[in-house]
Amino acid sequence: MREFKKILDQRVKETQEIIDRYLPEETGYQRRIMEAMNYSMQAGGKRLRPLLMRETCRLFGFNGGERDVEPFMAAMEMIHTSSLIHDDLPCMDNDQYRRGKKSTWAEFGEDMGVLAGDALIVEAFSTAAGAFAGTKHPYRVGQAIRILAEKTGIYGMIGGQVVDVELTNRPISMDQLDFIYRLKTGALLEASMLIGAVLAGAEEEECAKISKVALNVGLAFQIQDDILDVTGNQEVLGKPVGSDARNFKTTYVTLEGLEKAREQVKRLSEEAVEILHSLNRKNGFLEELIQMLITREK
Amino acid sequence: MREFKKILDQRVKETQEIIDRYLPEETGYQRRIMEAMNYSMQAGGKRLRPLLMRETCRLFGFNGGERDVEPFMAAMEMIHTSSLIHDDLPCMDNDQYRRGKKSTWAEFGEDMGVLAGDALIVEAFSTAAGAFAGTKHPYRVGQAIRILAEKTGIYGMIGGQVVDVELTNRPISMDQLDFIYRLKTGALLEASMLIGAVLAGAEEEECAKISKVALNVGLAFQIQDDILDVTGNQEVLGKPVGSDARNFKTTYVTLEGLEKAREQVKRLSEEAVEILHSLNRKNGFLEELIQMLITREK
Repeated sequence: MREFKKILDQRVKETQEIIDRYLPEETGYQRRIMEAMNYSMQAGGKRLRPLLMRETCRLFGFNGGERDVEPFMAAMEMIHTSSLIHDDLPCMDNDQYRRGKKSTWAEFGEDMGVLAGDALIVEAFSTAAGAFAGTKHPYRVGQAIRILAEKTGIYGMIGGQVVDVELTNRPISMDQLDFIYRLKTGALLEASMLIGAVLAGAEEEECAKISKVALNVGLAFQIQDDILDVTGNQEVLGKPVGSDARNFKTTYVTLEGLEKAREQVKRLSEEAVEILHSLNRKNGFLEELIQMLITREK
Repeated sequence: MREFKKILDQRVKETQEIIDRYLPEETGYQRRIMEAMNYSMQAGGKRLRPLLMRETCRLFGFNGGERDVEPFMAAMEMIHTSSLIHDDLPCMDNDQYRRGKKSTWAEFGEDMGVLAGDALIVEAFSTAAGAFAGTKHPYRVGQAIRILAEKTGIYGMIGGQVVDVELTNRPISMDQLDFIYRLKTGALLEASMLIGAVLAGAEEEECAKISKVALNVGLAFQIQDDILDVTGNQEVLGKPVGSDARNFKTTYVTLEGLEKAREQVKRLSEEAVEILHSLNRKNGFLEELIQMLITREK
């Protein structure tokens, strides 16, 4: 476990360095937007998505994808960050702070908040498309861009956000909650692992398995979040527990009860590991990373 | 001229039909966002950018790009529409109406306005990347995606919007106004023509000329707009004249005077036609279209 933690720290650091290489230089008449983009991109965060992307690429032996994956790692983090910026806007969640820092709109103004989010979405595709310049695998890169777009848009993350926004303060069915969890957070995790696989030239069947692993991990992660809100230790979590109940928020736990939620996390994570093993490829670090995400206590 | 008008009507109709094929079906839990996207995409407009794209592709004999160009035409219109949706938001221009219809946020709510704009940006890249599926020219498609992203982002349209927003109600230099005009509207016109050329396999030198033509046309178009605000006929224009002066807006005319502005339009358009001719390729319709854009009286 200490070994894992050491590798984790090292790879998060590498991931951070890769992302930093693709951030815009703050220059020109439009420098304020670059400042807003970089402010948001450097606000901390676990870099989980690009990390999972690279480790999935490694699982398939990189196989010609080791350079192509780097712009996509940055692109994925830009997409994720853009969604946080727009989520915080006054007309959305109206959050003035994120991770102890002022949110982007609170720091740069609401108009810059809208534009910085837009700019990061576009910059993500610009960065990803930059992979064409040096690649030996243009079809793989093309497919990776399609995955990035599809899992970000109305059939992915944004689709999930829309339903989440629409159903705020309204009763939610299990089917709707599942839809929100799968799309709002699941889709980008799926895209991350899938892009890593595609860029390493994984077969279609292998990609289908990776998708399933990622969706299971995403869903288990969410349900674990709901469980911790009830059972968690406030000091360990670093945030108040019981907030879901106070806000009358529908969660897996409120719909199905604590016992069933725990069973579901167990089932999803066991299945994920099983599918991962069925690929007959080895990335022990990736497996431990996935275990850590699901069984975390904070 | 009547012949031109007939072809124009026909090709606008074709352009419209092509775009419509790429609009999302309104279905699923997230159908409201699809409704908002389609509402905005079908709010009228001249479809100028996709039209110019296809005609530039035609100028180079299509040459294997006739199918690839279609998703890019739709993608370009989605990008343009997304910028209108976000421009209208309360924290930006705060416009409740556009072309006589309620603006997207006024019709669907501010949160949906933000998300619909985001969704159209992403859908644009998803649609463009769809061209990989059937293409014989993956590198051309890759290059076209790079152009789309670059000319939309902080070095293109969004860069121009940022400076425009920042300098509202502040004195603007000629250099800054030029920057805003070139980027805010010029960049997408440039991308449109450039993508048409790239998808038809135009050489680098030819692409450089097409860029110059497009930037000249975009700039002349803007300056003509400033001129018409002073000299135009309100009934022909269909909107009040003199609004720039009333709003203390800095324009080419306020900075340089009417005479110089007219000379500039003449110089830019003559140069554009000259460069176009130097390509030794023939698309009479494209030439007339460009002339019409610049010398318009409304």
